[in-house]
Amino acid sequence: MMRRLSLFGATGSVGQSTLDLVRRDRESLRVSVLTANSDVAELARLALEFRPDLVVIADEKRYDDLKQALAGTNIGVAAGADALIEAAQYPTDLVMAAIVGIAGLAPTMAALEAGVDVALANKEALVSAGELMTAAARKSGATILPVDSEHNAIFQCLAGGRIDQVRRIILTASGGPFRTMSADDMARATPAQAVAHPNWSMGAKISVDSATMMNKGLELIEAHHLFPVGLDRIEILVHPQSVIHSLVEFVDCSTLAQLGSPDMRIPISSALAWPQRMVTPCAPLDLASIARLDFEAPDEVRFPATALCRAAIAEGGARPAQLNAANEVAVAAFLAGRISFPAIVETVRRVIDADAPATPASLQDIFSVDVASRAAAQYLVDHFEHA
Amino acid sequence: MMRRLSLFGATGSVGQSTLDLVRRDRESLRVSVLTANSDVAELARLALEFRPDLVVIADEKRYDDLKQALAGTNIGVAAGADALIEAAQYPTDLVMAAIVGIAGLAPTMAALEAGVDVALANKEALVSAGELMTAAARKSGATILPVDSEHNAIFQCLAGGRIDQVRRIILTASGGPFRTMSADDMARATPAQAVAHPNWSMGAKISVDSATMMNKGLELIEAHHLFPVGLDRIEILVHPQSVIHSLVEFVDCSTLAQLGSPDMRIPISSALAWPQRMVTPCAPLDLASIARLDFEAPDEVRFPATALCRAAIAEGGARPAQLNAANEVAVAAFLAGRISFPAIVETVRRVIDADAPATPASLQDIFSVDVASRAAAQYLVDHFEHA
Repeated sequence: MMRRLSLFGATGSVGQSTLDLVRRDRESLRVSVLTANSDVAELARLALEFRPDLVVIADEKRYDDLKQALAGTNIGVAAGADALIEAAQYPTDLVMAAIVGIAGLAPTMAALEAGVDVALANKEALVSAGELMTAAARKSGATILPVDSEHNAIFQCLAGGRIDQVRRIILTASGGPFRTMSADDMARATPAQAVAHPNWSMGAKISVDSATMMNKGLELIEAHHLFPVGLDRIEILVHPQSVIHSLVEFVDCSTLAQLGSPDMRIPISSALAWPQRMVTPCAPLDLASIARLDFEAPDEVRFPATALCRAAIAEGGARPAQLNAANEVAVAAFLAGRISFPAIVETVRRVIDADAPATPASLQDIFSVDVASRAAAQYLVDHFEHA
Repeated sequence: MMRRLSLFGATGSVGQSTLDLVRRDRESLRVSVLTANSDVAELARLALEFRPDLVVIADEKRYDDLKQALAGTNIGVAAGADALIEAAQYPTDLVMAAIVGIAGLAPTMAALEAGVDVALANKEALVSAGELMTAAARKSGATILPVDSEHNAIFQCLAGGRIDQVRRIILTASGGPFRTMSADDMARATPAQAVAHPNWSMGAKISVDSATMMNKGLELIEAHHLFPVGLDRIEILVHPQSVIHSLVEFVDCSTLAQLGSPDMRIPISSALAWPQRMVTPCAPLDLASIARLDFEAPDEVRFPATALCRAAIAEGGARPAQLNAANEVAVAAFLAGRISFPAIVETVRRVIDADAPATPASLQDIFSVDVASRAAAQYLVDHFEHA
């Protein structure tokens, strides 16, 4: 059966992996919509290859370039934030939400409100607006298929079970590049050290989030929204090899786990083919060669970010959006050499220690919290710099 | 919803664990039938506690004792092999087949032919008569719910998936007490050394099977019957800690695994409650405390049993029944100090190297193969002893 796919964020890493899988299974998958932020040349190239009905470039200034590149084709062309939201409502079977950052939130919400299943690779959207998104999905009947490897693992482990039969969800964490580093050495850690992730090849922002373990804290918030078993039933387990992507323990004390090579095409394919599976070109797991898997409890003294995230989602309301916004500003400041590594999490802590804004009731409220929290974090960063 | 349970082999280890779970969930489980081989006192005690409709003692000589012990109750009493078969057809929702050895085959077949779901803890039945049993289940629509921890793990991993989407089944093996022993030392191994299993507390026969890895070979045969993905898609992986009970790799290279403490009540509860789950008193898995899981490829030079089993099931027909019968005789001879440890597998090899009997078409054929193969093995054992 042919499935139609709308791909938001076609030129990024998840977008490219998605299209790699589509290329191998043109019989079952057809691209209806492609979008990108600003890379017109690549978006046009992909449009000519995949022949979607519609392409959208977020940056309105690139509209003419895109229009010209696709002249003579019958591919529809649009540009701008509103066009992205309209494109999310274009008839399709699955929206792949792979736009990075808060920019992906509005089109993702539009798809969920329209009752379209969403393969969600946009972490920030769910962290900042998890309650609005899950409420929209419940109302419209849309399914959120998580693409993050950890949440996809949990989703797969739950496929045969019911969420009320879950005793515990165990989110695995690599521990990041500083897992064995002393607090003193972390205080002197450089951006170059922080972006060297041991298992996955990732961008600078998410690599730093892995080093602080803020990434795992954000995933804890995501897991809480996606799998509402109660926050005290979601634990973090450090597993340096990142072979087990997460585990679900049921009331009978039977535990299911999903494992795989560190290749994003595995969780992406799981979302694309769900509830079936599709053949991928990924490397099968060779546990005899891997030989050994290690596990340890997280150290929330050296890595306070996960406890901070747990507190933020326990309080709820605007806190997770504040936390996410402050973290983005603090990570950028660290990468620019303006604040120390421990100051990243400290900046976030101070932003969410302020009086709580009102609970966001709309995307507009989320955006307001986001802007205000970025400004607050920026103020603190400037303050750290001059301290 | 109340489920009726007929428990065959109530006084053995799996039977006792089953009743321990029933005791904790009297709201959902009601025992209809209890059977035992010869332990009248314990069977009567259990009957008075669980108040089944019918109890059966296999040993006909104990009928009067059982009748007398249950005098004044309205519990039906019967004895003998035919009574066991009739009891397997007694109205129920699930038969727990926990009789050890070939003695469990006839009642299990009777239940499958009657279309009753069977929780199967009887390894020998499936090894010897797998084709007849799976054919009977297919014909009547009965489901076989495996209770062996490895097969139950695979069954759980498949719950959300389809067998035609399986790329590989990976059966884990502890490697047994002789995993790191040299071939020379194995040649001198004693029964006392062989029965010291590192992870599970088990009887002497299955402990020796674990030491030779014949146990894993028998499980390979079982897996082939239960999960017909093709013999070349079933692999064995040595995993000394026995925490991962087995794994299923799908066509997308995503792998699911089931993990748990070494407590048979976990797979038993899975079969009792399937497709739901029930609360058990088992210890949750604490991977941070376990700290480390190891994996290695099996060494089929030092442990030739698994390759022998693979060859036997590849040839099919009477071979697996021959192999199982010969192994029982050889293990008993080893435990009695009559043959060496390597002579166990060598005896089995010689028995199945003989001309193949006709493919069994009935249980009677299986029993004939069983008897003839035991005689052949006994002849070889006597020969080894005098060599």
